[in-house]
Amino acid sequence: PQGRRGFREAPPGRPEVTLTRERYGVQRLPFSRVSGRDVAFFERVLPGRVVTDPEELEPCNVDWLRSLRGCSKLMLKPQTTAEVSQVLRYCHERNLAVNPQGGNTGLVGGSVPVFDEIILSTVLMNRIISFDKVSGILVCQAGCILERLNDYLEERAFIMPLDLGAKGSCHIGGNVATNAGGLRLLRYGSLRGTVLGLEVVLADGTALDCLASPRKDNTGYDLKQLFIGSEGTLGVITAVSILCPQKPKAVNLAFLGCQSFAKVLETFTTCRAMLGEILSAYEFMDKKCMELVERHLKLSSPVTGSPFYVLIETSGSNSTHDEEKLNSFLDQVMTSGLAIDGTVATDDKKIKARSTWFIWMSLIHQMLWSLRERITEALTHDGYVYKYDISLPVGKLYDLVTDMRARLGPSAKNVVGYGHLGDGNLHLNITAESYCHSLQDAIEPFVYEWTARHSGSISAEHGLGFKKKQFIHYSKPTEAVFLMHQLKAMLDPKGILNPYKTLPS
Amino acid sequence: PQGRRGFREAPPGRPEVTLTRERYGVQRLPFSRVSGRDVAFFERVLPGRVVTDPEELEPCNVDWLRSLRGCSKLMLKPQTTAEVSQVLRYCHERNLAVNPQGGNTGLVGGSVPVFDEIILSTVLMNRIISFDKVSGILVCQAGCILERLNDYLEERAFIMPLDLGAKGSCHIGGNVATNAGGLRLLRYGSLRGTVLGLEVVLADGTALDCLASPRKDNTGYDLKQLFIGSEGTLGVITAVSILCPQKPKAVNLAFLGCQSFAKVLETFTTCRAMLGEILSAYEFMDKKCMELVERHLKLSSPVTGSPFYVLIETSGSNSTHDEEKLNSFLDQVMTSGLAIDGTVATDDKKIKARSTWFIWMSLIHQMLWSLRERITEALTHDGYVYKYDISLPVGKLYDLVTDMRARLGPSAKNVVGYGHLGDGNLHLNITAESYCHSLQDAIEPFVYEWTARHSGSISAEHGLGFKKKQFIHYSKPTEAVFLMHQLKAMLDPKGILNPYKTLPS
Repeated sequence: PQGRRGFREAPPGRPEVTLTRERYGVQRLPFSRVSGRDVAFFERVLPGRVVTDPEELEPCNVDWLRSLRGCSKLMLKPQTTAEVSQVLRYCHERNLAVNPQGGNTGLVGGSVPVFDEIILSTVLMNRIISFDKVSGILVCQAGCILERLNDYLEERAFIMPLDLGAKGSCHIGGNVATNAGGLRLLRYGSLRGTVLGLEVVLADGTALDCLASPRKDNTGYDLKQLFIGSEGTLGVITAVSILCPQKPKAVNLAFLGCQSFAKVLETFTTCRAMLGEILSAYEFMDKKCMELVERHLKLSSPVTGSPFYVLIETSGSNSTHDEEKLNSFLDQVMTSGLAIDGTVATDDKKIKARSTWFIWMSLIHQMLWSLRERITEALTHDGYVYKYDISLPVGKLYDLVTDMRARLGPSAKNVVGYGHLGDGNLHLNITAESYCHSLQDAIEPFVYEWTARHSGSISAEHGLGFKKKQFIHYSKPTEAVFLMHQLKAMLDPKGILNPYKTLPS
Repeated sequence: PQGRRGFREAPPGRPEVTLTRERYGVQRLPFSRVSGRDVAFFERVLPGRVVTDPEELEPCNVDWLRSLRGCSKLMLKPQTTAEVSQVLRYCHERNLAVNPQGGNTGLVGGSVPVFDEIILSTVLMNRIISFDKVSGILVCQAGCILERLNDYLEERAFIMPLDLGAKGSCHIGGNVATNAGGLRLLRYGSLRGTVLGLEVVLADGTALDCLASPRKDNTGYDLKQLFIGSEGTLGVITAVSILCPQKPKAVNLAFLGCQSFAKVLETFTTCRAMLGEILSAYEFMDKKCMELVERHLKLSSPVTGSPFYVLIETSGSNSTHDEEKLNSFLDQVMTSGLAIDGTVATDDKKIKARSTWFIWMSLIHQMLWSLRERITEALTHDGYVYKYDISLPVGKLYDLVTDMRARLGPSAKNVVGYGHLGDGNLHLNITAESYCHSLQDAIEPFVYEWTARHSGSISAEHGLGFKKKQFIHYSKPTEAVFLMHQLKAMLDPKGILNPYKTLPS
């Protein structure tokens, strides 16, 4: 499969797929099974774009973490909304289950079939429909790859309002369907604010065109919100209209080492006050993360020997002003002992005159970001990964890692914490040589109970998918879950869209 | 009624209420009528907080524009969510219609009863529940007045992410229920991004607690989005959790005169490029607006004699940097002839030392903002006002005003345009001595057809309420309206919540 950023092939030494489906004890629902007649119908609708070859299907049946495997025997690759509509109308009539799939980079098993669901791939829906330079509104099909969209925009002095490690593979439709957060949320807000319109095909094949949305529109209920973050269970997103910010003229990075998590927090407070409107990312990682990135990916850090590391990014319109702000901030944190070591990569004006230096600076930027962005990848090299994506009050963020480390002791290989501190979002990861029931039982439901006790969310940005759906009650009251089931029943009465996902059974 | 900012009493000379209800030809639906037994029940639940006095009811039966009058004979003033829940459970069982009401500052007749609906006022639900200084998350009851919340936050170095002319009267619950836009949207985005959680009571009395939401939360469908902008037709918002930005350390204003709308647009492009991340408002008004504000409110402008005026606000963390950016921008627009006249009110550092000057500066700020914010008020002094709140591509924004002026000729007293240019939001207002069918027929549906032809929205921020609901089809396709009706039927099967509003009959 086209992997998350940086590699396409599964690296050697990566653990085998663990069929956790059995672990969850889920039963196949009584959907119809795909017949030869069905395949013939789809061949007529999508000539040459119907996949039945097991080898070609294999990567789409397995999630990126290689922790789940479906057994779909059919993948469809529509190019247009009308085709998606025809496919779903047929599946709805025939009671055939459908698994919408974008870049298949999800981390909770939401993007692969659980049984033999038909895979509906957006891979060929990769057309940019329009871009308006005055308003910054981009309209494109759902299968456009995030990084390609960003490249397209950068040529026009704009950027996408979201960025994430999987950008080289993930589709914008999948990003919207999962309400992806990522690295720019601190600055540009969530997709619920930046997505202006959607085109969606409902379970019965009805095409819902809410694409042509101006920036402000209060004419009735905002239906597109239903589909943002619904993980393909309420409709298939076929096109997206999104508000893109102007490309910042200056981007600066600082990478700091801190002696304690308390100092990471205090550095954040100082940073917010002194960098204000130009702060665009505040990421943290612990020293275990750094060790894994160094060991498995052979990356090296310019700052070493600290228990915590912080990556700060500023994005602004005036490089002189931004550097002044960043320098006063760095003076402050270094003299007050909040940070003990650090490196800075500024986007100096000089770069315009000296192109080699420009290349050098952008390499440094890339290198610093890699330390943070490739942690997910480094973890997969360390063994089986138990992944948790938690929202907590920032002050409590690292306590969960410490408590978990103490609880698991030597039964875990590594317990690491990193994430989007600026958004109160912790990525807690636990590795072991291989999947083990008793270790999982030691982690869950402890991790969810801990989170609920501190009013956190058990899924900050990854969604619930297949793996987390049974734990929704730790973050949502019964009345809310009941209402979600009502919505599902209203929009997809036969339950054919991405079954076994998001809502508890 | 407590009016929109600046006055509490209806000013003399304001036109009488025009019962446009008849104009719309709506029939009362077969809800039960309030009986003595019902009043007795409510008296038990809300002792001393049940209003039946016609004089006290009068202002709550009439909208702020005095264009609609209901005939409710009962108003309830709950203090807690549990009370709202008891009231709605009873009304649901008895089939009694309910009109939720906040500050009653709406402009489309969404906040007053159409017939004898029970008014459910949030006026006594004005408690601030919590504020967290680290995260900036405010949790409060729905009846808190926007300006009071902002005052509370300013004392703690934060601000509300929204601001609007009606801030002195409007309730945060009403703001959320109508997805209010306002003056800060350009900078802080819409309520769909900043509202983190809601507590809502459904039509049958079920309390839905989605209040304790962290900044990022992807655990199931985002139910709160259903209620944002649903104008009280799907549930009654009882509490709000909202993410508040830090109070900017420096706020600067520039007020410019431009010779043409083309120059207003070019000034905007220049402004976005040169002010970047510190731009917090870009408002425009035409000379007719200025005349009305000067004539009816006796305000005077430091800049005169231009066909268009622009108000630009910057908010940032470093006053020196912000002033430098603003000054280079002003140099650019003045030397290039984009603006012909202008005045600036900066938040100079000197103000810390010289308190009298500080007061003077803040008065200038207030005065400049008044010119823009009090246009709505000035218009009500000019006669009957036909109000339109339109989203359009910025380039087309003023063409609608020009076309309308040409179309109506002398049959209108004034045709004026102003609004949030940075958001593509035009407020088109037409005044006449009194309400007149033929004038309305000359305006509608022409204004909606014009807007639909240019892919705009017929309601950018005011909502549909009672007055605009029949025109939803100009902005939304049939499939979308059908789905909205399904949502309404699911959440409020008896249709008791704010009937005759938002959705077309």
